[in-house]
Amino acid sequence: MSHDAKSLDFRSDTVTQPDDAMRRAMASAEVGDNVLGHDPTVKALEERAAAVLGMPAALWTPSGTMANLIALSLHLQRGDRFLAPRGAHVLQNELGSAAWLAGGMPDPMEHDAGPGRPTPETLAAAIGAPVSSYLELRTTLLCLENTHNASGGAVIPPHEHAQLLSTARQAGLRVHLDGARIWHAAVALGLPPAALTVGVDTVSACFSKGLGAPVGSVVAGSQSFVERARRLRHMLGGGVRQGGVLAAAALVGLDRIGDLSEDHEKARKLAAGLAEFGWEVNTPETNIVLARVADVAVTLDSLGALGIQASVLGGRVRFVTHRDLSVADVEEALRRIKAGGHP
Amino acid sequence: MSHDAKSLDFRSDTVTQPDDAMRRAMASAEVGDNVLGHDPTVKALEERAAAVLGMPAALWTPSGTMANLIALSLHLQRGDRFLAPRGAHVLQNELGSAAWLAGGMPDPMEHDAGPGRPTPETLAAAIGAPVSSYLELRTTLLCLENTHNASGGAVIPPHEHAQLLSTARQAGLRVHLDGARIWHAAVALGLPPAALTVGVDTVSACFSKGLGAPVGSVVAGSQSFVERARRLRHMLGGGVRQGGVLAAAALVGLDRIGDLSEDHEKARKLAAGLAEFGWEVNTPETNIVLARVADVAVTLDSLGALGIQASVLGGRVRFVTHRDLSVADVEEALRRIKAGGHP
Amino acid sequence: MSHDAKSLDFRSDTVTQPDDAMRRAMASAEVGDNVLGHDPTVKALEERAAAVLGMPAALWTPSGTMANLIALSLHLQRGDRFLAPRGAHVLQNELGSAAWLAGGMPDPMEHDAGPGRPTPETLAAAIGAPVSSYLELRTTLLCLENTHNASGGAVIPPHEHAQLLSTARQAGLRVHLDGARIWHAAVALGLPPAALTVGVDTVSACFSKGLGAPVGSVVAGSQSFVERARRLRHMLGGGVRQGGVLAAAALVGLDRIGDLSEDHEKARKLAAGLAEFGWEVNTPETNIVLARVADVAVTLDSLGALGIQASVLGGRVRFVTHRDLSVADVEEALRRIKAGGHP
Amino acid sequence: MSHDAKSLDFRSDTVTQPDDAMRRAMASAEVGDNVLGHDPTVKALEERAAAVLGMPAALWTPSGTMANLIALSLHLQRGDRFLAPRGAHVLQNELGSAAWLAGGMPDPMEHDAGPGRPTPETLAAAIGAPVSSYLELRTTLLCLENTHNASGGAVIPPHEHAQLLSTARQAGLRVHLDGARIWHAAVALGLPPAALTVGVDTVSACFSKGLGAPVGSVVAGSQSFVERARRLRHMLGGGVRQGGVLAAAALVGLDRIGDLSEDHEKARKLAAGLAEFGWEVNTPETNIVLARVADVAVTLDSLGALGIQASVLGGRVRFVTHRDLSVADVEEALRRIKAGGHP
Repeated sequence: MSHDAKSLDFRSDTVTQPDDAMRRAMASAEVGDNVLGHDPTVKALEERAAAVLGMPAALWTPSGTMANLIALSLHLQRGDRFLAPRGAHVLQNELGSAAWLAGGMPDPMEHDAGPGRPTPETLAAAIGAPVSSYLELRTTLLCLENTHNASGGAVIPPHEHAQLLSTARQAGLRVHLDGARIWHAAVALGLPPAALTVGVDTVSACFSKGLGAPVGSVVAGSQSFVERARRLRHMLGGGVRQGGVLAAAALVGLDRIGDLSEDHEKARKLAAGLAEFGWEVNTPETNIVLARVADVAVTLDSLGALGIQASVLGGRVRFVTHRDLSVADVEEALRRIKAGGHP
Repeated sequence: MSHDAKSLDFRSDTVTQPDDAMRRAMASAEVGDNVLGHDPTVKALEERAAAVLGMPAALWTPSGTMANLIALSLHLQRGDRFLAPRGAHVLQNELGSAAWLAGGMPDPMEHDAGPGRPTPETLAAAIGAPVSSYLELRTTLLCLENTHNASGGAVIPPHEHAQLLSTARQAGLRVHLDGARIWHAAVALGLPPAALTVGVDTVSACFSKGLGAPVGSVVAGSQSFVERARRLRHMLGGGVRQGGVLAAAALVGLDRIGDLSEDHEKARKLAAGLAEFGWEVNTPETNIVLARVADVAVTLDSLGALGIQASVLGGRVRFVTHRDLSVADVEEALRRIKAGGHP
Repeated sequence: MSHDAKSLDFRSDTVTQPDDAMRRAMASAEVGDNVLGHDPTVKALEERAAAVLGMPAALWTPSGTMANLIALSLHLQRGDRFLAPRGAHVLQNELGSAAWLAGGMPDPMEHDAGPGRPTPETLAAAIGAPVSSYLELRTTLLCLENTHNASGGAVIPPHEHAQLLSTARQAGLRVHLDGARIWHAAVALGLPPAALTVGVDTVSACFSKGLGAPVGSVVAGSQSFVERARRLRHMLGGGVRQGGVLAAAALVGLDRIGDLSEDHEKARKLAAGLAEFGWEVNTPETNIVLARVADVAVTLDSLGALGIQASVLGGRVRFVTHRDLSVADVEEALRRIKAGGHP
Repeated sequence: MSHDAKSLDFRSDTVTQPDDAMRRAMASAEVGDNVLGHDPTVKALEERAAAVLGMPAALWTPSGTMANLIALSLHLQRGDRFLAPRGAHVLQNELGSAAWLAGGMPDPMEHDAGPGRPTPETLAAAIGAPVSSYLELRTTLLCLENTHNASGGAVIPPHEHAQLLSTARQAGLRVHLDGARIWHAAVALGLPPAALTVGVDTVSACFSKGLGAPVGSVVAGSQSFVERARRLRHMLGGGVRQGGVLAAAALVGLDRIGDLSEDHEKARKLAAGLAEFGWEVNTPETNIVLARVADVAVTLDSLGALGIQASVLGGRVRFVTHRDLSVADVEEALRRIKAGGHP
């Protein structure tokens, strides 16, 4: 590409820049010492996020990894087994903190119901028979992820969510939902986010992914869960002082959930374009396109030479659409790829 | 059954009673304070076990679970991923200590090469591409299990062992072999146990399973590994004083490895008999028979009423043959099952 | 107090509001995805903090607790003993994460050299004789804290620092300096902060305490330490995306180290005033006044009724001066206390 | 010494050899698979130990370290602070497992009431005010040790035990008693061991120390505690199969508690003799003599040259009397020291 050509960054929807509205909100945020419980903007964000997610209470965390880690740590006793679809963020992208820190023994489930989720039968088989002796591993937690990143932003259909919840509940399991991109799932389904958390004990959600805020996530659950989570957040070093400057941006982000439909449209356009060139891609349900290529490293290099940045996920090339890439940018990317002879 | 009928205990080869020779050895053992390093019989056992296993050094532990736990703890850094065949003892039967205590993130592999082991291709795929960023989970350890309990005492053929080792080594992984029943594998293959540890970093082996000793296992590896293992054993509470009384029995057990062929013959006889009755059973390679039945609990109860004790493993009924059950006991068990109308 | 009277918040120097300059800096910060390593402002802050602290490299963290936790976790092996002056932040104010998460066995030392630090002899005695057997606890780390919060912001004199470092080094210990308020120590001593880190392996420092930034700390050490710290930060959930919005404020804060002398002057004025009323107070070296009172809860309530907020520390009332309290505010506080008949 | 001279081993009361009665008991013990809950001799020992200790239930463990570790792990939540007299076994001799494994933040207390125990006032001060915010460390456990090894086998007088228990209970703390040598305390006080456990939640006791059994301890508490302890014992690798061979020896040991008075007499004789030579020694309450010498290493070497083995504890030389050293052996040791010119 020419040196003037804009670099098109499809690596993640976390790369977005806070826009002017967010920066203004940050600059004028009313803040206080949130470790001492006095930041009104963090409180406002936590209350609003809890409402949007349909949960009794929520707690701000610096990252989605910490949000998930807190939930797992509070749900799991030493050595408890937990179940998650293969490739889940808690299994694959959190550097093993679920085992080391939360103390949980993971068991991945196959995605036999569709991308990102098992059938209730697979879940039931993974749970197995009730424990009959002190010598047996206890399975106590189900982690779902909606949308499921490693499956290309796949959405869990509500009736499948309900079936999985029912199966887990009958076996006495708790349920944590990694909802880093729950906003995308809600938009894709045309439902409010709260409709996707029915029956879960806890849910995490992220303000950086898609919504464009610079920093921050929440973990939501019961009042008593949030009280224990606050303590654990402090132990992990996630208690911050005038967090309201970040919460202000996240509040702006929450106004924009509806905009994500545009990102989904961009992803469909990108996938369609790549498919035309003969690439083997998923049919994106939300904002992630996964392409199976002969050699991932070679493809990433070729794309880089064209001014297009993408990432690797599970042996595939991942493109994520987001608010800092326009429809025109997607079209430009396709033009460059075509012109680059790739293919 | 009549009240006089002998109860036939097929639950495990750990239920054996130390016999007269072992009891005499225990009663006359030369002992010392092994925490202070002065028990000659423990030393003799560790040296002999190391030699038999073909390793530089070995350390006595009170259980195979502790032997495995020490190895995993010393091989894994916080959150490192380790690979093991699905159903492995370290995944299924140690109450999650691999995660909680050793801090490892397990990933189970399918048994596509045969019962108890993956193909090298499956292993390579599970290892994945080399880590290219600090954000990626590191896979640093392969755990094999020979024989593989959950697969019915299946033996890893030496050429497959070599292929798996080679694949793991090329990717920079360490290898731990859970050899609780390595004696059985060696006898089944007609090889010395040392032939089955080629290339591994560490191996655990058990004196209770099959060999008839009351208590004790070893973990073997390099001299420096054993020094670190000694410290960790003490931290875990596995340092004992006059352990020579137990080591003496284990030394007697090591003289009896060859006898295990009789246990294998008993297992084949049992499996053949059950198959004649229409039971769906494995073809035992060593001393474990797994039977798939309609309702495990019902079958266990029916067997119990006939004076036959068995256990459950992975949804199947498990029968383990051992030195306290004779060929005649196996025949008697089959008679009772037939007479009991079961089938 | 009348409803119009300004509330005077002496609870901590973490309660300060980011001022206009900081808010402007945040609003205009150049940012990127710092998890991916692309935030120029975070990088600039890390480089500048490393230089100011006299260390090869530094890593941003969301809190000082995380900064300390990362350092302890990387310095300590399972069960290693570490030494710190009694009342140290890592012992008292981080909810035990040094033990639970870092795995360290703390041993508090008395302050026999002066507030906040032991004599070299006490340190040497605490270290004890070299370990001669695998059965002995290893002491591997010294944690100092400068200024020492629980001792009323006490400064470690440089020659004592040097003696303690020398004693620790001779015994093979690593040294971590909790420098949350190292800025205050530097100003009090009239030295650059880098003069206070001579010989340490790692140092943490905070941008919220005194410098007025809303969120953030650093942990500094060797390049290789920082690489490992980056990974651990991510595991703990401290990796954030466009952290530059926070780093921009911290950079402004670093320009203001010199202003802290005013906070020290305010503390001296407050202590002198309270002493005049007959209160038993420390002679503040920096910005913390500790007052011993008959009943802490009663005194806090009385102060609260006067519109003065203070906190409790080690059974004493703690007043912390900071940039959001002027000299006039200190005088007003003294007036209210006098008028309140307290004494 | 001449090559014929008997080596006199005062290093610990753990060095004793099981005698003929114990060996016979081991050789004829009725045993079963104790992991499966079928070892009648282990059960008999656990029931008898519970009764002797005045607790509802008890669980056999391979070592006292594991017994303490289980108790601490079950009493402490992540990062909870626990209190113990300085030099306690759980602080000093278990390689930090209280921190690493149990997750507890220890705080040592001074022995201002007498060797091995604080005053109730010191305990109350260490506990501090009730926690008023989520930011404060919680103190939840008191660990006592009776007799206290590092204080020369010092006994806690029952009225002091009662006062400490009362102080701890009022503050809501749990209490664990490390009673590795509770037998010695009971004999010294002329009370049954159960009189020394009044009000504690859990107690550990050892069969190797003084009672002469080769291997084994117990941890005792409520029925529900023991059920959870059984699971944790298995996780730690402390579940053994035919443990009855060891329990049989421990049962013999329990018959001999009364004999310990002879060991106490030997210790008094040894201390008196050493004092006559000008050594600075404690007045032994039970079976441990601590001598303060100019250079511990030199003294140990000199003693070694005389065929006398001793150990180091807290910078002093420790001599422990036990059943394998007779009164004549003590006299012989004194003769050798005198003849050796030491002094």
